[in-house]
Amino acid sequence: MTRLDALFDDLTTVKWGPGKKSVDIIDQSLLPGTLKRIQLHTAEEMWEAIKKLKVRGAPAIGIMAAFATALLANQIATEDYEIFVKQCQAITTYLATSRPTAVNLFWALDRMQKLIDESRGQPVSLIKDKLVLEAESIQAEDITICRNIGEIGFSLLSELKGQDREIGILTHCNAGTLATGKYGTATAPMYMALEHGWPGDAMHVYCDETRPLLQGARLTAFELSRAGIQTSLQCDNMAAVLMAQGKIQLVFVGCDRVARNGDTANKIGTNTVAILAKHYGIPFYVCAPSSTIDMATLTGADIPIEMRDPQEVSDMWYRERMTAEQVNIFNPAFDVTDHSLITGIITDKGLCQAPFDKSFLALGLS
Amino acid sequence: MTRLDALFDDLTTVKWGPGKKSVDIIDQSLLPGTLKRIQLHTAEEMWEAIKKLKVRGAPAIGIMAAFATALLANQIATEDYEIFVKQCQAITTYLATSRPTAVNLFWALDRMQKLIDESRGQPVSLIKDKLVLEAESIQAEDITICRNIGEIGFSLLSELKGQDREIGILTHCNAGTLATGKYGTATAPMYMALEHGWPGDAMHVYCDETRPLLQGARLTAFELSRAGIQTSLQCDNMAAVLMAQGKIQLVFVGCDRVARNGDTANKIGTNTVAILAKHYGIPFYVCAPSSTIDMATLTGADIPIEMRDPQEVSDMWYRERMTAEQVNIFNPAFDVTDHSLITGIITDKGLCQAPFDKSFLALGLS
Repeated sequence: MTRLDALFDDLTTVKWGPGKKSVDIIDQSLLPGTLKRIQLHTAEEMWEAIKKLKVRGAPAIGIMAAFATALLANQIATEDYEIFVKQCQAITTYLATSRPTAVNLFWALDRMQKLIDESRGQPVSLIKDKLVLEAESIQAEDITICRNIGEIGFSLLSELKGQDREIGILTHCNAGTLATGKYGTATAPMYMALEHGWPGDAMHVYCDETRPLLQGARLTAFELSRAGIQTSLQCDNMAAVLMAQGKIQLVFVGCDRVARNGDTANKIGTNTVAILAKHYGIPFYVCAPSSTIDMATLTGADIPIEMRDPQEVSDMWYRERMTAEQVNIFNPAFDVTDHSLITGIITDKGLCQAPFDKSFLALGLS
Repeated sequence: MTRLDALFDDLTTVKWGPGKKSVDIIDQSLLPGTLKRIQLHTAEEMWEAIKKLKVRGAPAIGIMAAFATALLANQIATEDYEIFVKQCQAITTYLATSRPTAVNLFWALDRMQKLIDESRGQPVSLIKDKLVLEAESIQAEDITICRNIGEIGFSLLSELKGQDREIGILTHCNAGTLATGKYGTATAPMYMALEHGWPGDAMHVYCDETRPLLQGARLTAFELSRAGIQTSLQCDNMAAVLMAQGKIQLVFVGCDRVARNGDTANKIGTNTVAILAKHYGIPFYVCAPSSTIDMATLTGADIPIEMRDPQEVSDMWYRERMTAEQVNIFNPAFDVTDHSLITGIITDKGLCQAPFDKSFLALGLS
């Protein structure tokens, strides 16, 4: 087993417990200090795991919700479809309240619910089996999507190879294996490079710590270094020094939502990285499952920016207030990167370049 | 007494204790939670106060070293000049070891030592009095320098007035009253605005928290909000959102050293702010006592970037490691902002603009 296979094995965010009698997840709230898997059996445990960020990352939350629905549906002791569908609805309605803004959560729950609705008239035991398969499909599809993104990203890394030094890659936040089914999005190019036989020191990934919640420090640096990739961590305000010193050849970031014109919403700080990359002439790539490209949203101006709990900024890791009481706190969770700053958007269906709307349409998005 | 006068009174970083028998400082390591003054009597206490960042900020450290030297010299029980000068040398040599890279520390100690050397033949009691006056002069000079910078900065703010809204100002790190004799450098324009009768809500100062040591959150936001100025705090990676939203009209930052061509070394993250300001068309001003302009350094490439303790980045406020053990940490303390990004350098002798070398020479710097 390669170090990478071991990583994917150890860090599978969501999987079945023994005999498919529980959902087995990593408690990400304990990382990087403790790598602990926990088995969830009840709806309350599942809800709490999502609510308390034990599982996080949009695709991972979707997978978790699907596994949770399948497991809880299998626990319903009835052969009566009407009773079954009612109890299933109660489950999905309840799980949907765990994180009210998580689009992938609703999407996965809807997909599971739709399968139940469309299975009317079939034996409940058969529907239960189909729900398990559907959850596994959601996970498998995510793995394929990330793998496709990774292959395209890897081809970009390959073009930089042959230069007489390691390839410096900057990333922001965590769009890694912990956030998805397997490869991550922004991390997929590096993991694919390992699968293609590159040694871990052919690359050097510089991770922005990503204030306020430190997903870069806690999660991305953790998983990349564990995979044997040369990994460094810096505060968000230090990335420009790396760029000025010529240490960064390319930027890969994930995304939450891409507008029709290519404007991209992602974790706060992404836009700053893009402006710096432009200033220093460094290619900036967004890694985007095609499901995140929202052709109904014309530009980034139409994407609302969620403001989050001031305590995330004012209290270092929720322990002690680090500023005066009378100070206002500005804590946007996301920012929008203008399409003009983006070299390319890597989707599972192909690499898109400006003008992005035409490029998206050419891939069959609409 | 105005709120601003009360602020300066409360936050005087260094002053004499009762009867000039001690040096009285704010223990800045306890801010913002606790505002506590401590009286220092011994060389060991003075040394530790500098070493452990109870007093920090280049001008403040210089003032502290001068007060310390004067106080400790006055404790020497001799009328013999030779014995006196030897013991004074021991004091300044010892204090100089507290922070080996603090230029203002050495500068102030040298100035005190020079006074002693030049007073050979005079009664020791007279020299002791002169040392007290010299320390007070160093502080008074700093106040004048900062006030001059503040007046120029205030004239820039005045040009923005009349627009039908508050003036949004971004700053980074702490170049405030806590770091200097009174007005700060980057904060001086806002304090002068209050002295000129502006209400605190005519301005809105947005403070970058300034990772890793959070001087913006802990110190700048603390003192500005205490002065009654509208103050907000954001993570360093959020400043671009404020700029994109049109909330920032002007940037003021301090500096550690300015090269002959205008390239400016300052707290890590300053260069990123400058690049963002350029991108969004926002004026970016450096506030620089003319002593920090180093005409012997031709460009920023000649300014070495100090790398600091990895724990500052990896361990949130020195309590718990927030990333995996095998991750490298990149922790430059300063960065260099290219002169092409700087709208103007505000010195105590006048406002300098590109080409900066000619502008500096015109002010009599050489």
